[in-house]
Amino acid sequence: MANVLTPRKENYSAWYNDLVMKADLAENSAVRGCMIIKPYGYAIWEKMQRILDDMFKETGHQNAYFPLLIPKSFLSKEADHVEGFAKECAVVTHYRLKNAEDGKGVVVDPEARLEEELIIRPTSETIIWNTYKNWIQSYRDLPILCNQWANVMRWEMRTRLFLRTAEFLWQEGHTAHATQAEAEAETKQMINVYAKFAEEFMAMPVIQGVKSASERFAGALDTYTIEALMQDGRALQSGTSHFLGQNFAKAFDVKFTNKEGKEEFVWASSWGVSTRLMGALIMAHSDDNGLVLPPKLAPIQVVVVPIYRNDKQLVAITEKLAPVLDALKQRGISVKFDDSDTKKPGWKFAEYELKGVPVRLAMGGRDLENGTIEVARRDTLSKETVAFDGLVEHIEDLLDEIQENIYKKAQTFRDEHITEVDSYEEFKELLETKGGFFSAHWDGTEETEQRIKEETKATIRCIPLDAKEEDGKCMLTGKPSKKRVLFAKAY
Amino acid sequence: MANVLTPRKENYSAWYNDLVMKADLAENSAVRGCMIIKPYGYAIWEKMQRILDDMFKETGHQNAYFPLLIPKSFLSKEADHVEGFAKECAVVTHYRLKNAEDGKGVVVDPEARLEEELIIRPTSETIIWNTYKNWIQSYRDLPILCNQWANVMRWEMRTRLFLRTAEFLWQEGHTAHATQAEAEAETKQMINVYAKFAEEFMAMPVIQGVKSASERFAGALDTYTIEALMQDGRALQSGTSHFLGQNFAKAFDVKFTNKEGKEEFVWASSWGVSTRLMGALIMAHSDDNGLVLPPKLAPIQVVVVPIYRNDKQLVAITEKLAPVLDALKQRGISVKFDDSDTKKPGWKFAEYELKGVPVRLAMGGRDLENGTIEVARRDTLSKETVAFDGLVEHIEDLLDEIQENIYKKAQTFRDEHITEVDSYEEFKELLETKGGFFSAHWDGTEETEQRIKEETKATIRCIPLDAKEEDGKCMLTGKPSKKRVLFAKAY
Repeated sequence: MANVLTPRKENYSAWYNDLVMKADLAENSAVRGCMIIKPYGYAIWEKMQRILDDMFKETGHQNAYFPLLIPKSFLSKEADHVEGFAKECAVVTHYRLKNAEDGKGVVVDPEARLEEELIIRPTSETIIWNTYKNWIQSYRDLPILCNQWANVMRWEMRTRLFLRTAEFLWQEGHTAHATQAEAEAETKQMINVYAKFAEEFMAMPVIQGVKSASERFAGALDTYTIEALMQDGRALQSGTSHFLGQNFAKAFDVKFTNKEGKEEFVWASSWGVSTRLMGALIMAHSDDNGLVLPPKLAPIQVVVVPIYRNDKQLVAITEKLAPVLDALKQRGISVKFDDSDTKKPGWKFAEYELKGVPVRLAMGGRDLENGTIEVARRDTLSKETVAFDGLVEHIEDLLDEIQENIYKKAQTFRDEHITEVDSYEEFKELLETKGGFFSAHWDGTEETEQRIKEETKATIRCIPLDAKEEDGKCMLTGKPSKKRVLFAKAY
Repeated sequence: MANVLTPRKENYSAWYNDLVMKADLAENSAVRGCMIIKPYGYAIWEKMQRILDDMFKETGHQNAYFPLLIPKSFLSKEADHVEGFAKECAVVTHYRLKNAEDGKGVVVDPEARLEEELIIRPTSETIIWNTYKNWIQSYRDLPILCNQWANVMRWEMRTRLFLRTAEFLWQEGHTAHATQAEAEAETKQMINVYAKFAEEFMAMPVIQGVKSASERFAGALDTYTIEALMQDGRALQSGTSHFLGQNFAKAFDVKFTNKEGKEEFVWASSWGVSTRLMGALIMAHSDDNGLVLPPKLAPIQVVVVPIYRNDKQLVAITEKLAPVLDALKQRGISVKFDDSDTKKPGWKFAEYELKGVPVRLAMGGRDLENGTIEVARRDTLSKETVAFDGLVEHIEDLLDEIQENIYKKAQTFRDEHITEVDSYEEFKELLETKGGFFSAHWDGTEETEQRIKEETKATIRCIPLDAKEEDGKCMLTGKPSKKRVLFAKAY
């Protein structure tokens, strides 16, 4: 069974694709670049959504829904934004089909051409700020703290399931504030929420930081990011929160009357995470046998496989297990009891390993006699036979332990892959041989950043929020630098 | 405050629009026919979603996600389907914009024309059955019970918030089965789920029935519907479930090997409800003062307004109420304590009436002395002063009572507006003067149905599932009929 996946060492990219397909997470569709999220993959995404949504609500946000389509002219209103988003996008030009004259299928009706073309939203700042204009008159209307769960589309040329798809699912928060300080505090609060979600639920350590100017969101004054490390040594940007200043308020003329009766432009933030998190989750933890899921995001946390020779034995095992299954469910633990007789236990073991179920219980005739049960952990692939008494508490503790262990493993790997370098030669060599993040001095210019990118394919992932002041010299140009920044090759 | 809305008697349609806007439910966007669902409206939709989603999962369904865009040629594969859906739809023809040569904004890049145009999904049977083809080989792969929550688009010419919009939100279930009986049972099960949801949660009585051939979903062999009655005497189709036979399996060549080793086409159902339910909810219960929400769907179930002369009194009222608020929250009741000092109590009362909050509590200085509190019901607009002791239980009971009362009121109205008619003249007269459903004999032909529609604007809403066999004569043609069907003017 282990060989259903290409081993990571052989070809990490092929391993990823195999895993996404074989574990029933997602697949490509008939529409180039658009994926189908299969039920098992979607169940993980739903868990992520539910938890994030609760976190957004706890921090005072409400959900709303804005249109899928954006008038073309809206994109041009904010100068940087149009450069970033107006290029590769799906354009709706007509609103009707008609029967083809040759009787074969349907064709676009040339008479149903739109006066102004509409764009499928690549992100919604423009349509939302055009709306906020009508919602905001006075400081009493502020803050507005909205989020939406939606699909968006960016016509990417090279796509990969979850990581880069033409259509993807995400949430986008869009907030409006009376002061710069409040908008900045919101921006930072939300990157903190994302970091907390990544670490506590995805068991994925992240580095919080600020993007360099060239990597900022198109239209932002500052972009905060959480950066995670994948097992192949590449970084993955997992969530961003943007301080937009008054750029969109100015572009859409959104002013408010402040407490002193004066008109001012509104301050803004926006922030989002997407189905890309699924790619991060998969690549952060999984192994050559399949998915490894942190218990907090696993659709099935415990699977139970009875091993029986005859119906009588199955009945006895089922009866013995019933109260345990009930007790687990009552504690909010999702359990699957798989007594299907069309598959053998060995096949089931491999299948649930592939699907990343954190804990597997197996009970056979001997266990029944001895009052024991076999407990297998997905994260370590270890097994032990334990007493049946106290099983529920044991499993509950084990799920916590697995969550923690997965996090620690990822953290150790990540920490071992943050390398301080002071010479460009060393950087280039270790980038190829070791991978991971490189903490290095940079002279702060876009030219240097660009040259490093061209020569090594590494980019500045972020200027870490906790970077300490330190006198140094740019590893490429030798010019003075006050802080180390993090370089890496990235997804 | 009552006059913020046009009274229903004066202009029902204006009343509806006023209410949707003033209660912050939704508004029109800059894109023709596409609405913005505002946070308060979206909170109601989220409650609906959560409940329906649980009901779908209880009946064995899983969520998944399929692409927004559908290749144009897919629509032509099922003959009836293309007639129904390929006409008014948004067509993506290009995938890139470029800077305009005159430097003003962006224009469509003529070089980025798609080889085959893509349609924004009006419904997803085609792309899903094209996918199921790869998921289904044997009877062991069946049934497939998938649902998706998604946005869809139909280029409607005349739009109304929630009731008929170009883009709307919905869920669409798509199931695949080995036998006709199983697919038909699924179709019926889901219309039952919808009926249960409408009645138990929306407090809206519905009639279950089958559509006449001309009102069927494009591509279905049978369409089941739930039909509700609005206060203006018009019917509103609130959910449909379609038995698709093997039509889509044949169109997309989806076969399976049955237990006997023979190849067969797969049987299908699809079913959906949309944000149209928001329109139904509003029109079924609300009055000239605003929304009336059934407690089970109200984002705020109880609002508490302290009435105070000074800070000391506010502190005393707040302290007195704190344990009650906690106790209500612990019982899962959503409570808002509105002590904002920028609005007067009278303004707040009117505002929460407009928003349909089921129970309003008000506590002033005298209540504090007397150990009492004022309890107001939104459904009856009645008020009573009750003892503070036992308040939590009283509110809990009251919420149940309100839910039941709203249902009964709608049921009484509906029952009074189902009229048996045997003559076409009587039908035409009462349709104008009384409105509602008319139970009448029909000869079963599309010609008669069409003539009645043209002459009266009434359509056959459904052939009720519980219609009894009875010898009669078609009210228009006098030809024999075995069952009465329900006519009404509809949204």
